[in-house]
Amino acid sequence: MKNDKIRVGIIGANTTNWASKSHIPALKLIPEFELTAVGTTKLSSAKEAAEKFGIKYAFDNAFDLVSCPDVDLVVIAVKVPHHYKLVKAATEAGKMIYCEWPLGNGTKEAEDLTEMAEAKGLRTFTGLQALSLPETLYLKKVIADGLIGDVLSSGIIGSGGMWADIRSEENLYLIDPANGATMLEVPFAHTLAAYLHIIGKYKTISATFARRRKEVTLLTTGEKVPQLSNDQVVVSGILEGGAVSNIHYRSGMSAGTNFLWEINGTKGDILITGDLGHYQLTPVNIQYAASGNKLQQMEIPTEFLAAGIQTPGQPVRGLYFAYKAVLADIRNNTRHVPDFKDGVAMHKLLDNIRISADEGKTIAL
Amino acid sequence: MKNDKIRVGIIGANTTNWASKSHIPALKLIPEFELTAVGTTKLSSAKEAAEKFGIKYAFDNAFDLVSCPDVDLVVIAVKVPHHYKLVKAATEAGKMIYCEWPLGNGTKEAEDLTEMAEAKGLRTFTGLQALSLPETLYLKKVIADGLIGDVLSSGIIGSGGMWADIRSEENLYLIDPANGATMLEVPFAHTLAAYLHIIGKYKTISATFARRRKEVTLLTTGEKVPQLSNDQVVVSGILEGGAVSNIHYRSGMSAGTNFLWEINGTKGDILITGDLGHYQLTPVNIQYAASGNKLQQMEIPTEFLAAGIQTPGQPVRGLYFAYKAVLADIRNNTRHVPDFKDGVAMHKLLDNIRISADEGKTIAL
Repeated sequence: MKNDKIRVGIIGANTTNWASKSHIPALKLIPEFELTAVGTTKLSSAKEAAEKFGIKYAFDNAFDLVSCPDVDLVVIAVKVPHHYKLVKAATEAGKMIYCEWPLGNGTKEAEDLTEMAEAKGLRTFTGLQALSLPETLYLKKVIADGLIGDVLSSGIIGSGGMWADIRSEENLYLIDPANGATMLEVPFAHTLAAYLHIIGKYKTISATFARRRKEVTLLTTGEKVPQLSNDQVVVSGILEGGAVSNIHYRSGMSAGTNFLWEINGTKGDILITGDLGHYQLTPVNIQYAASGNKLQQMEIPTEFLAAGIQTPGQPVRGLYFAYKAVLADIRNNTRHVPDFKDGVAMHKLLDNIRISADEGKTIAL
Repeated sequence: MKNDKIRVGIIGANTTNWASKSHIPALKLIPEFELTAVGTTKLSSAKEAAEKFGIKYAFDNAFDLVSCPDVDLVVIAVKVPHHYKLVKAATEAGKMIYCEWPLGNGTKEAEDLTEMAEAKGLRTFTGLQALSLPETLYLKKVIADGLIGDVLSSGIIGSGGMWADIRSEENLYLIDPANGATMLEVPFAHTLAAYLHIIGKYKTISATFARRRKEVTLLTTGEKVPQLSNDQVVVSGILEGGAVSNIHYRSGMSAGTNFLWEINGTKGDILITGDLGHYQLTPVNIQYAASGNKLQQMEIPTEFLAAGIQTPGQPVRGLYFAYKAVLADIRNNTRHVPDFKDGVAMHKLLDNIRISADEGKTIAL
């Protein structure tokens, strides 16, 4: 397979949903991938997607997709509660697997899936795509190179966007923690993964949660529905280098701050701003100032961007660079992209954050 | 004394320092106060100040000032370590006392002073002047009136300004916690007092501290001096109404955010911004948006401002309104201005914040 195209089967793409607007365009930009199969729960929508995107096979049964001999890499882009059975099927079929984050509906599922995949020696990838963004890699580099000296502190104010009034029935599952896709697990964790990659791991954490919106409106019907998840998440702590970290996510949108990430160092400051707390899928603006100077725009150098094509914008950007890194990992047998083990590590970090909030104590990691 | 002027003796004002730029101009704007005495440690500087500001008596001995029969109200505007002996002297002289915050160098001193003053039935005032600002009173009113609905969350990012490189020898005492005037006690506590007055008390707190700048430069000499205080303070928690609160102060200045206070409610958002984390002495800009709308400037209504004169700007503004409120409290025998008991309560809150940080636990208040 060294120089062959990597044949991708994607589960969960129709003609209009998230996967169709992010995974598919990202994969299409990388000629080393060939989208060979698409699977949904309805044959009609699978066929529509196959036709629209020029995909050979359309399945209404994920088990057929994972067994298809023209699929090397199975991409799982469905709601979290369905990850387990689909990833399990893909491992049983012995395929390489890219599963969107959150990997499992809870740590136990993620651990089981990791064990299954490892037992078969399969390549796995967890879709924490914010780690592959050029912004992430460049910020990691300049901070490691000492651009702002020692990092004194770092903090994010982020808006979840969702977990307030709900646009459509399809998103209702987000507000029930039983479905494993609350604000903590989605925008917070996606962003946190890149954040920690850039400025270093936690040494200690201390968390405060609240469920402030007890019910929200389903905007399609006007119906009031119970909102069961924690829609306020504060995690403060100390990072390995000693810097103080403070992150506050809240549901919905603010007329004020929706994404503000500020890193203060002994020699300067970096400010990363955007319109939504989902750093994994929203464009950001980066500014930098040496101490005592004014902020100026920070451009990402060309070598961090796409070669030979116009670098795609979000939400394709994150997945484009994730798939580029997946390709390199497969071709070179390297391990730069988060794998299932890294997914488990993030699940465990979230567990510790939950314990800190529930028990009201600082946890040393 | 009902209609007589209140005669004020101020300890700690020379011709150029903080008191001369804030307390004295504020008092001069209120005709019901008459500045009759000034005390410093040097007769020459006391005399210079007396001459410059048209003050009758100049003392180089605070004990003479507090005993002066032409002084009704003693204002103590010196470094915290000197508060105890000066307040004690003023209580022994049976005078009304306005002592700058922090009241004592630690809770014990503040408690002792409160006890002494209460034993003599004296009127006392603690200089948490941010509580008297028109901005504070107006914000408290609009939030209580439901302008932004239920408060979901509130957070501040603030810069200490000091506790990084030190401008002059006179400020060196700030970086040694033994002197009771660290970033926690000064900008954080001043701001917190108004913050809690506006949006309600803490139900729980959870704090993270760090001492990141281990040494700083004394800018007058270039000398490196040990920085002993915690120059990173994060306090998160739940407020009585259930809102999540998250405050992060860091030493020095940022090229990015130096004062950002955002309050998110079910019906709108309020954004309060400024150039320094000392809300008690720095001008702020206030914006408001109803949910789904854009931020617009929020003007303080005339009835909250000064009557008959141009409302002074900061740093006079805070003290002007504090002294106006002191005047009303004295004349009407009301208790709106924080007194020594309120000072003790703030000292105790800071103690609990310290315990939370030191022991790594959430504290229910």
